[in-house]
Amino acid sequence: MLRTHTCGELRPEHIGQTVTLCGWVQRTRDKGAILWIDLRDRYGLTQITLEEGVEAEAVRETARHLGREFVLSVTGKVAERYSKNDKMPTGGIEIRPDKVEILNPAKLPPFLIEDDTDGGDDLRMKYRYLDLRRTPVRNNLVLRHKMAQAVRRYLDGQEFIEVETPVLIKSTPEGARDFVVPSRMNPGEFYALPQSPQTFKQLLMVSGFDRYFQIVKCFRDEDLRADRQPEFTQIDCEMAFVTQEDILNTFEGLTRYLFKELKGIDFPTVPRMTYADAMRRFGNDKPDTRFAMEFVELTDIVKGQGFPVFDNAGLVVGINAATCAHFTRKQLDELTDFVKRPQIGATGLIYARVEVGGVVKSSVDKFYSQEELQRWSEALHANAGDLLLIIAGEPNKARKAMSELRLEMGQRLGLRNKEDFSPLWVVDFPLLEYSEEENRYFAMHHPFTSPKPEDLALLNSPDTIGQVRANAYDLVINGVEVGGGSIRIHDRAVQARMFSLLGFTDEEAKAQFGFLLDAFEYGAPPHGGIAFGFDRLCSLFGGADSIRDFIAFPKNNSGRDVMIDSPSPISEAQLKELSIKTAVVAK
Amino acid sequence: MLRTHTCGELRPEHIGQTVTLCGWVQRTRDKGAILWIDLRDRYGLTQITLEEGVEAEAVRETARHLGREFVLSVTGKVAERYSKNDKMPTGGIEIRPDKVEILNPAKLPPFLIEDDTDGGDDLRMKYRYLDLRRTPVRNNLVLRHKMAQAVRRYLDGQEFIEVETPVLIKSTPEGARDFVVPSRMNPGEFYALPQSPQTFKQLLMVSGFDRYFQIVKCFRDEDLRADRQPEFTQIDCEMAFVTQEDILNTFEGLTRYLFKELKGIDFPTVPRMTYADAMRRFGNDKPDTRFAMEFVELTDIVKGQGFPVFDNAGLVVGINAATCAHFTRKQLDELTDFVKRPQIGATGLIYARVEVGGVVKSSVDKFYSQEELQRWSEALHANAGDLLLIIAGEPNKARKAMSELRLEMGQRLGLRNKEDFSPLWVVDFPLLEYSEEENRYFAMHHPFTSPKPEDLALLNSPDTIGQVRANAYDLVINGVEVGGGSIRIHDRAVQARMFSLLGFTDEEAKAQFGFLLDAFEYGAPPHGGIAFGFDRLCSLFGGADSIRDFIAFPKNNSGRDVMIDSPSPISEAQLKELSIKTAVVAK
Repeated sequence: MLRTHTCGELRPEHIGQTVTLCGWVQRTRDKGAILWIDLRDRYGLTQITLEEGVEAEAVRETARHLGREFVLSVTGKVAERYSKNDKMPTGGIEIRPDKVEILNPAKLPPFLIEDDTDGGDDLRMKYRYLDLRRTPVRNNLVLRHKMAQAVRRYLDGQEFIEVETPVLIKSTPEGARDFVVPSRMNPGEFYALPQSPQTFKQLLMVSGFDRYFQIVKCFRDEDLRADRQPEFTQIDCEMAFVTQEDILNTFEGLTRYLFKELKGIDFPTVPRMTYADAMRRFGNDKPDTRFAMEFVELTDIVKGQGFPVFDNAGLVVGINAATCAHFTRKQLDELTDFVKRPQIGATGLIYARVEVGGVVKSSVDKFYSQEELQRWSEALHANAGDLLLIIAGEPNKARKAMSELRLEMGQRLGLRNKEDFSPLWVVDFPLLEYSEEENRYFAMHHPFTSPKPEDLALLNSPDTIGQVRANAYDLVINGVEVGGGSIRIHDRAVQARMFSLLGFTDEEAKAQFGFLLDAFEYGAPPHGGIAFGFDRLCSLFGGADSIRDFIAFPKNNSGRDVMIDSPSPISEAQLKELSIKTAVVAK
Repeated sequence: MLRTHTCGELRPEHIGQTVTLCGWVQRTRDKGAILWIDLRDRYGLTQITLEEGVEAEAVRETARHLGREFVLSVTGKVAERYSKNDKMPTGGIEIRPDKVEILNPAKLPPFLIEDDTDGGDDLRMKYRYLDLRRTPVRNNLVLRHKMAQAVRRYLDGQEFIEVETPVLIKSTPEGARDFVVPSRMNPGEFYALPQSPQTFKQLLMVSGFDRYFQIVKCFRDEDLRADRQPEFTQIDCEMAFVTQEDILNTFEGLTRYLFKELKGIDFPTVPRMTYADAMRRFGNDKPDTRFAMEFVELTDIVKGQGFPVFDNAGLVVGINAATCAHFTRKQLDELTDFVKRPQIGATGLIYARVEVGGVVKSSVDKFYSQEELQRWSEALHANAGDLLLIIAGEPNKARKAMSELRLEMGQRLGLRNKEDFSPLWVVDFPLLEYSEEENRYFAMHHPFTSPKPEDLALLNSPDTIGQVRANAYDLVINGVEVGGGSIRIHDRAVQARMFSLLGFTDEEAKAQFGFLLDAFEYGAPPHGGIAFGFDRLCSLFGGADSIRDFIAFPKNNSGRDVMIDSPSPISEAQLKELSIKTAVVAK
């Protein structure tokens, strides 16, 4: 090796040894008679000290002309440090060098390579290889590495086998848009990149693999919102001969293992909540349960007093923002503006303060008597000092808006601490979701999800089809969906029926998924599985909001890698060989 | 779980317990009064026994109508087996069932689900999910799983960090053909799928990651030979602040660890051989060193005796096929035909037998005296009973042909046992390779490989440029290249010079690899790495010749997945959205 030790390794017990370190110049301080270099590598920082009359003048001369981020090899004796630094693991020693060799000089970086950098997003993305030098960014990727190894260790110990499924597969019309790859050898035909290895993992169950997993790249060509990436990573799992209960237990085990291994946290047992309850109590199928502030439906209590907003509403729903009666008019106006944003969609916000002594003062006092207001307060279990926040409207819209308001209040009240972890299994999702736009049903999870056997009869009537529940479940932590899965259909007839409900003709179903329908006829076992968003799980563990910080080379919101400047045009020769032409429509 | 135990788990100590097993019907035997079912899952086989007057008639009735590959749930008591089968781990017990439930029936499979199947390649590929049920195929994938976990365990223990690099990258003109992906959001532009994460892993070294690895899918759109796949998997590694020696030692350690963990073999220390020596001694840069039969150059000995084949040859090279003097005329004619095949390319084969007493009898006795033939025999260290095989011609062609003949002889003599493992580091590869066809130099490894510092001056003259050696190395086991790598260039000027030697204009180099050239200016450390062909490594460990057996869902030689019928046409709407058109030229 070009070095004998790393920059994070030397301790007082090494004093007197001659060592060679390699690394980057973090900073230099030149006080004339003494000159210091902080040398950095992945493992830490070590101080190099050069003193007039002690270290050779030639070595000091080299050291005097070093810039930030120069790559050095430094050979010298480990010495006790005069002024020790307890905050640094190597703070007890320094190197007194015989030799300082510049392995590679460096131009001045376009932003500071420090924990807090002065570089903007765009600049840091263009020079991602420099951004990755910063300790917080590197730590994110180290966390990701550790998480991947821990996932494999746990699942390997549970007899899961990691199987690589193909990346060049077949385009399917259901779900998000596919990325496609023209085939040179099969002109006019295309592969697609997988949105998930769903059908392959089911085939592995048909093959008797029994327990499969894979940490695998998946691809979706969607318009990118702030925190989506065109390529993302899943922990993809499937088991045969299991019930939903077995899957929940197995992957609760995985989650607990990860929290213990990576964060030293004894993760609590994961409670379960039905989709219907989650919607009713939190207006959200992925409720943040770090705090309560549950919904109370006030519709029956508030109607009929001549207040048209409530009288005309399908649902009137309230939350109790405890201890918030002191909110000023300005703060309440802010909250009103918040719920009226187009993406949140409420028409307004009604509030009521519970004052000392229990008197309730509302923004709609002229419609409601104190006695009536007391009934609101009671329903919301409010005490003196609490603030009641109420939204009315079409039930789904009112719930959605109230859910956003609840999260906003949780944020404002400091109830969403990133180091608290509140997990939840949401179960019994609806099987199908109706799209008014396309005038048909879509699979809420995916077309391979099994209806609950006890709800099968509801599939027979258009009136009840929307009520059919699926054996589908999500793992939600802190309001983030970190994983989701289902028990799958393993019966050809049920699967064919599902395709038909989703609007596939028999012919289309056969062309797209004939191999799976065939496979179900050759002895398919009952099976089910789950997939975790690995990027998301990493960001949750890392206490960050964005997955981008946990991806080594992410793309921006236009799907571009600005560092390598991709995508980019390709040559006419390449296009010709692939039997395609570009057909860009001028705007 | 739907089962209490697996089909490989029950032993005599379980006798008397009531258990439930799930699995597939391997076979049934109906002897009237007694009926047996062999139930199979991934873990093993268990015998179910149903006896007239003991098991209920209703259960026996179900059992009588089972077909191969039906999926069952069987509940009953574990009983001692009447005629024990020592060859089966569960051979001491049987299940006497109270209940046999058909979880899913099965059509008759199109081929036998047995270790030796009657299914042809095409059929097994179409029904790959059934082929994967066969024990030898499943064992291959289990081996692959274990190898992947062991690789990660070892490298994690050596402070390597697994980092995922992007799959959607940028097309580059050098090397094999890229698969490309049209970008919907950037009309007229394309991503490319990586042939390797080469530049990204180098950037990670620039970022200070120090030790990187990844088990990663890579893609090459090449015409597929028998044992190539368009998508394949690499163990991709890179280290900073190292010399070639450090890399060889680290990955020799990995290889030894894998052999110990997976095969229980103490793998020998890996000898080293220069490329020049490998070509001289074996005519091959990946010699199979399980056996010697080394080349002896006879050119100086054999010339000038009036035999035009030798007199006109640039090289006359021989091997000693020990103990083969007994080869018949027919066998020798076969070998002559073998070396004259177009893909081998020799013009003929000269042979000489060393008879009892040491007399040498050759096919060219009329040109050479016994004394002269004795000198051949001496040069080839031959003894009585040995056969000398000699090829003459243009040096490279003669070496190539002799290399093939040597391997053929090794095969015929049983010297290439799949359970013997003979490793070799081949080092000091040439940096550049001249293409007569394109009239320019190509990088032998890739454009990022560092020339040996001591050979740098040879780059200055067109006469010596071909002699420049690289800090490049391959790990060869049993004549198979399982890994290869190099110390990389980390200096911008040297890298720019290399691009120029390879025919890039400055502009092209900047457009393609500007990010890397830039990165080298911001403090790039000395670094190098290696990549192993993971599919190949698995097949070597599994004692197989083909990598296809170690891939769950491989493609055929036309790049098709015949199971899912991919690639396939996509809709006009999809094409339009991607701003491309197909342009298939009629044949």
